[in-house]
Amino acid sequence: MSAQQTEGSLEILTESECIHLLATHHLGRLAVVVEDRPLIFPVNYALGDRVVAIRTADGTKLAAARNAHVAFEIDDVEVGRGWSVLVQGVAYDITEAVDRQSELARRLRVEPLAPGSHERWLGVHPVAITGRRFLTTST
Amino acid sequence: MSAQQTEGSLEILTESECIHLLATHHLGRLAVVVEDRPLIFPVNYALGDRVVAIRTADGTKLAAARNAHVAFEIDDVEVGRGWSVLVQGVAYDITEAVDRQSELARRLRVEPLAPGSHERWLGVHPVAITGRRFLTTST
Repeated sequence: MSAQQTEGSLEILTESECIHLLATHHLGRLAVVVEDRPLIFPVNYALGDRVVAIRTADGTKLAAARNAHVAFEIDDVEVGRGWSVLVQGVAYDITEAVDRQSELARRLRVEPLAPGSHERWLGVHPVAITGRRFLTTST
Repeated sequence: MSAQQTEGSLEILTESECIHLLATHHLGRLAVVVEDRPLIFPVNYALGDRVVAIRTADGTKLAAARNAHVAFEIDDVEVGRGWSVLVQGVAYDITEAVDRQSELARRLRVEPLAPGSHERWLGVHPVAITGRRFLTTST
């Protein structure tokens, strides 16, 4: 059986470090709640002015995310080291929104992952942005 | 602005293809619901006899996942191609469970991501396992 204690270092990232990581990556996972149960979707995204912009189509993801609390996560983990950033926030359908943040978000280049139609834009407005970085040395 | 239509192919994976992918990877993301809001945690895992085994400590993740509906996702995405597998299921604290599946799960080698104590075992029992693979050609 594996050791139950892992040694190493764990570092809490500042919000500006988290935002830098969000701005320099393009693949994340969006979690939504449908009938009290969570679902996770891998998505490509871009970070605008504190808005995580995602292109999608009408469907489960959009219906569950619209005007709802969601979580959005990015990470990069290898053996012995890694980091992750979690955005907790509220998602809006910004396809036709005329506020400045939404208009900026829709100008971002977001390459959807999967083939098909992606005529809708979701914008995740963060309530909290947290992250951590760690090094591990298995014992 | 990016094109709104992405061309390519999208393939629904069979459950056995999903299980093969789950068995041959070790990093995933666990989503739980806390006060009607989703959270996502990156976790290392191993697949036992249809149980996703995760080591963790007492805390938010364990408290929210225990005896609750959760989602667990793995993916591998690059420009132009990718796949993802989603496990929807119920998580149990199997640290002291004496059923055969739980005992097998606790014998798996699971290297936790982050340093610190990981004295508890979570087992995610799937209700549904779905996945898809895609190739994209941006237009």
